Order: sequence, then C-alpha cells, then structure tokens
Amino acid sequence: MTVYHYLSFLTDYGLEDGFVAACHGAAARIAPEARVIDITHLVQPGDVRRGAAVMAQTVAYLPPAVHVAVVDPGVGTARRAIAVSAGESILVGPDNGLLSWAVAALGGGKEAVQLTNGDLWLHPVSSTFHGRDIFMPVAAHLAAGLELAAAGDQISVGDLVVLPAPTSRLHDGAVEGEVMSVDRFGNVQLSIPAADAGRLGIGIGMPVIVRCGRRQFTVPYLDTFAAGAPGEIVAFTDSAGLISLAINAGDAAQQIGLPPGAHVRLSQSPSS
Amino acid sequence: MTVYHYLSFLTDYGLEDGFVAACHGAAARIAPEARVIDITHLVQPGDVRRGAAVMAQTVAYLPPAVHVAVVDPGVGTARRAIAVSAGESILVGPDNGLLSWAVAALGGGKEAVQLTNGDLWLHPVSSTFHGRDIFMPVAAHLAAGLELAAAGDQISVGDLVVLPAPTSRLHDGAVEGEVMSVDRFGNVQLSIPAADAGRLGIGIGMPVIVRCGRRQFTVPYLDTFAAGAPGEIVAFTDSAGLISLAINAGDAAQQIGLPPGAHVRLSQSPSS
Amino acid sequence: MTVYHYLSFLTDYGLEDGFVAACHGAAARIAPEARVIDITHLVQPGDVRRGAAVMAQTVAYLPPAVHVAVVDPGVGTARRAIAVSAGESILVGPDNGLLSWAVAALGGGKEAVQLTNGDLWLHPVSSTFHGRDIFMPVAAHLAAGLELAAAGDQISVGDLVVLPAPTSRLHDGAVEGEVMSVDRFGNVQLSIPAADAGRLGIGIGMPVIVRCGRRQFTVPYLDTFAAGAPGEIVAFTDSAGLISLAINAGDAAQQIGLPPGAHVRLSQSPSS
Repeated sequence: MTVYHYLSFLTDYGLEDGFVAACHGAAARIAPEARVIDITHLVQPGDVRRGAAVMAQTVAYLPPAVHVAVVDPGVGTARRAIAVSAGESILVGPDNGLLSWAVAALGGGKEAVQLTNGDLWLHPVSSTFHGRDIFMPVAAHLAAGLELAAAGDQISVGDLVVLPAPTSRLHDGAVEGEVMSVDRFGNVQLSIPAADAGRLGIGIGMPVIVRCGRRQFTVPYLDTFAAGAPGEIVAFTDSAGLISLAINAGDAAQQIGLPPGAHVRLSQSPSS
Repeated sequence: MTVYHYLSFLTDYGLEDGFVAACHGAAARIAPEARVIDITHLVQPGDVRRGAAVMAQTVAYLPPAVHVAVVDPGVGTARRAIAVSAGESILVGPDNGLLSWAVAALGGGKEAVQLTNGDLWLHPVSSTFHGRDIFMPVAAHLAAGLELAAAGDQISVGDLVVLPAPTSRLHDGAVEGEVMSVDRFGNVQLSIPAADAGRLGIGIGMPVIVRCGRRQFTVPYLDTFAAGAPGEIVAFTDSAGLISLAINAGDAAQQIGLPPGAHVRLSQSPSS
Repeated sequence: MTVYHYLSFLTDYGLEDGFVAACHGAAARIAPEARVIDITHLVQPGDVRRGAAVMAQTVAYLPPAVHVAVVDPGVGTARRAIAVSAGESILVGPDNGLLSWAVAALGGGKEAVQLTNGDLWLHPVSSTFHGRDIFMPVAAHLAAGLELAAAGDQISVGDLVVLPAPTSRLHDGAVEGEVMSVDRFGNVQLSIPAADAGRLGIGIGMPVIVRCGRRQFTVPYLDTFAAGAPGEIVAFTDSAGLISLAINAGDAAQQIGLPPGAHVRLSQSPSS
C-alpha cells in the first residue's frame, strides 16, 4: 500500500468562487493527512493545452503525489475519467489529453484505470463539477492508500488521449517551433528546447536570427534575460529548458507581439 | 472539548497585500496544528451578499471546521462580532448577515456569542483589521479547543442579522428568481432550485422559456452545459442544485447580458 | 538546532503559471514537515520596494519562520543571494534590499551569509529561477534544522543592501511623506506613522489639511474609515500604524488620484 502525503491540484476554476475550496474540502474529509499543493487555478477556461503545459513543467519539481488536474470542457459527456500511474506518482483527471504531457514528463504511463468505481464518489454527482464529486474524492482515496486497480476498470495506457506535442523541427540550418506560453513577466517561451539550438551550433553569447511571420530580427543568446541591456530583446534558456525571448525589465510579448501558438523560426546569424 | 483540525477562511481582502497571510499567521501562532482552507479572498470589496452565497455553497463540502468569514464594510463601528455553532462547525465573523446563509446550510444556528472576551484578541486591536486582530485569533482559540461560551457573551441565535434569502417564487405556472452569481466560465446561476423547476413539470430534455426584462427566449433544459451545441444557450442544474444558464464553450453572462441581481422568470414551453 | 515549522513565501511570480508550486514542491521534498504561508505572489514584476513593504508589514504577525522573498530583477547576475537571521526568524532572498525592511521590523539583522553552498541547491540551477533552485531549497534546509553558517560564507550584516526607508519628515508644523501603497479597497496608505501626526498635535476627531501637488483639502481624522459619511474622504490610522486616506464604501485612490510614490503633506487645520 502506497500512501501519498501530497496531492497537487490544477484547474481552470478561478479563485473567485468556492470551487477550489470545495475540492480541498472533499480531499480533507477522505485523506485528512494529505496536503494539497495548488499548481494554478487560473488556466484560461477550457484551455486544455495550456493546462497540460503548466502541469508538465511543474510535476517534476513536486514530491511524489496524486496529481489532480481538471480542465474539462467535456465534463458530463462521454469523455472518460482516468487515473494513470507514472514515475512514483498517480495522475487523475479527464481523458482529454490534459495529463498526457505530465505523464510523459514523469517517464510515461505505467498503469491506467477508467474511474468507474462509484463507491468512491461524492453523491449526488453533479453533472458539471466532477472535480468536487469524482476526481478529488478518488484522488484522496488513492492518497490514503487505495490501490489504483480499485478505482475502476483497467484500461490500456496506449489508449489514453494524448495531445499533439509542441513542435520543434530542425531543418535547413534552422529550428522551427511555436510560442508555448507568455508568463507574467512578458517572457515568450518557445517550444524549442535549448538542446535543439545547440545542435544548430547556437551557443551562449552568439547572435540568433528570430523570424516570425514577415518580421525578422537578431537577438543575442545570453545566459539570462537580466544580462541584456534594458530594452534589449534577448534569447535565453528558461527554467524549463526551453528557448525564451525576453526584455530585461520589459514585456517582450507585448513589444514583439507574439501570442501563444505563433510560429517562430530560429537560425544562426551568419555574422556569428 | 472539541478540537478542530481545520479553519476555513473567506474574505474580500484580495491577494495583492499581506492581509490574508497576517491572518494565517495569527492562526498559526495560536493553533499551530490547525490547517486553513481558503475559500476565496476575491469577494468584491464589501459585497456581503456575494460572500454569503459563496460561503453557503461551499461549507457543506468542507470538513467540520471553524469557518471564518470577513466581508465587513462596518468594521470598527457598532456592528457585533459573533461566533455561531451550526452542525458540527462554528462560524466566526461580523454580525452583518454574511454568515447567515451558511448557518442555514449547516442546519441552523445552535448557540451564539458576541465576541467580547478581549483576552483572546491580538492587541493593540486595529480599528480596521478585525480579521487579523479579533476574528482569526478567536477562531484559532476555538479550533484549539476553547468552549464557545468562553469567547464572549451568549446571545440569542434568533437575534443574529439574517440576509434576505434569494427569491424563488412559484406562481401562475412560472418560477421567478434572480441572478445569484456569474462564475468564471460566464455561467449564470439563478436563485431558482432545480426542485422548483421540477414542480412546474420542467424536466431534463424539455424546452424552458426564459424571460428577463423585455426579452424572452427558449432554451433546452439539459443534463449539463457540455450537452449543448457550441454557441447554444442551455439551462442545467448546477453543482449547487440551482438552475443555471450557460453556453457550451462560451460566455452566457456576456451574451445574454444578465448581471447579478437581475430578475429572471422561467416557465414551461407550451411546445413541450 | 532550530527547526522551523513554517516557511513564508512572497514573490512577483503571479498565480497563472506553476512557478509558485514548483517552489512549494522544492520545499516539500526537503522539509516535508514545514508548512508554507504564502504572503503574496502578486507583487508587480520587479517592484522590489513594494515587495519589501508588504513583507515588512506582514512578518511580525507570522510565527517564527524561514521567510523567503523573491522579487529579483537581477536574477542570474552578480547580485548576491543571502540569508539573514532577525528576531526568531531567518530571511532568505536576493541581496537587493527586498528583505531589508522586514529585517528591521524583526529587530534588525543578527547574522548573515551569502548563499554559496551549492550542495543545498537544486541542480541544474536555472539562471532565471533561483526561487525554485536556490532560495527555496536553502530555506527548506534551514527550516529542517541546518545551521545558518552551513548555507554559505558569513558576511557582515552591515554590508547588506538596504532600501531607502519611506520618508516621514516633521517640519514647520507639518509632516511630509509619500504614498506607500494603495490596497484593494482603494485606501491610500501614507508613509507617515500615526505617532508623527500625534507629535503635530493631530488627534482623533480633528480636521487635517492634506496637500498633494497643487491640491489641498481638509479631512477629518477618524477612528476608522467606516466612521466617515458615505463618500467622505477621511484620514485614519491603518492596521500597520500608518496614516491612510479612505472613503467609506468608496475608492479614495481613484477619487483623489494619488498613486504610490506621490508626495503628501499633512498639517493641523487652524480651525481645530
């Protein structure tokens, strides 16, 4: 029997209602010893891809836990509710791809069940709030030591919905990707791992050509954004190991105008 | 002696200052074993009615706790500070009606005291921050096992300020209510319990006529918003058991233009 | 060996990403027994002065703890990472002045170290996320009982960067200061302690002349904002012991137009 001391929790519920607290309460009643680490509850409503990215970049830094994620535009419809073991953790949520990148970040899924054991749920089950009535109660039972197999019917890990991975494609001496996210500082995170830039021969201190749409500009690839001159756009390897664009003490996303999903191409400057 | 392992906490303090943390600290110094579940701190400043609604819809899902709520536009004036036992919990806050719906949701008040025992407070008591100096310290003492009667002078539960309940009135084959709240998804929660709609003969799958002001439209009453076609307004029973209007993957509040407090009338469609 | 049951945590990381949770996770892996009290994560990006003010006004209400603060526009550059003992607590963060007012609020620094013991860090260390990779891991080790001296090289407390203190200057029968902050209620906190107003002979119930720029108006100095008439601007002593301007059930900052940093002069009204 594995007991988890931690649950983690990510949703698009926002912080203005009592939704998150009701889920915390559901957990506390079943697994009073477990602590909840809130990842974020400010995923844009229904933005499964964004929820998947935040979760994948965070779980590796959390202790072994039952990770609960609910960005679930299909709540109450035929989409499955699942629990998947990966690494030393268990992930619980809707089977819409939300968990898929975190599962991969933890080394890949080992076992999976569809949450069909209604004895674990909070009744009556609301058709719109499975976080409170299904996902968190099941997660709390798992944290308290319930075997994964007791949460429902075993399903194949290979059958779980997987989100298309962010692209990073090397060709013709360039690497192409997309804007993964824009953080609170206006830093623009690309889907391009620093390792791919390295394969192109782009190293710290070199100029990089950034191309997005019809625009093209050259920026230095530095150790950190704070090494840039104030107002200067720089590229750097961010805390997730991805190439990001930033402006020291400025908002790069706003100045460059690069929203999530925008296509970006990096190449080595001939002048380097 | 009853020891509570949990405190819950709801305020309009916001998350940008250290107000909430100062209260957490005050609790931690008195009742280090108790955990705090934050319900929300983003109630609009001074919106007692909204705070009461969020609290009432959440407390039933929390473990037995000392529930602290502070939306307190009259702080420092003659309004009383109170603690009330209800169900297996104790509620602490200003006597301005904020607690009244949660007390009812927990089965009604059993005993009440006015918080007059200044030995429990944090001195000097600020005239504007009773959350930190009075409510949370008293709540923490109660969580640590202090008898309710030791927190102050006993008062009659019947004398506590009660907010007028949200209306839901059945007449002439229709049910009238108001918009209780709009959540982050743009879902419009009405003050009309699903049971009242049921008494009109409105059941899942039937069309419902919604009338607000001069406008009138007919929507399907479905199991869940996700069962609606994209862009379609639907009625459903939300996770609090109330009728809500929503748009699958859309913002119903924005599209219909129904702010909290707006009058709404539901009736059965003749075509059903 | 001192074990701390609490960490506190203040940053400008925002709540939309997984940054705060990654730090909570880093702490949980090293000091699973310690609890984290979040002060705020909504300091405006890079606003060291604001972070320092919130921290200084909050730490006195927290239990003895390892207080971690990260508002760190110079992350990855030559600025030092430090830990300082003050009162019964230890403060951890960048040496950019962020901690300086809280250190003073806790009675002044006793010992300080530069964080140079890389064995305590999370490797690989990101150049932009020292909260996750350095500050929180070191803080968690300190909470778990590590001696301060083991975190790095001892440095002189007198050499730490100190932010210029907010001004409050008495002269010519007036007291001059600045706007410290504007809270969620629109209350305008001045850098002027109530004690300084008292030295001018300004007492509760008296009129006060407020001068800012070319404007001048007279307001009553009351016990609390709620004692003012609706719409009336009043001065009162806030929960931090500072003079604040507020409007009962209104937004003083918006109506008066006083942003943080604005110069303000208070004097006794001749009519009093």
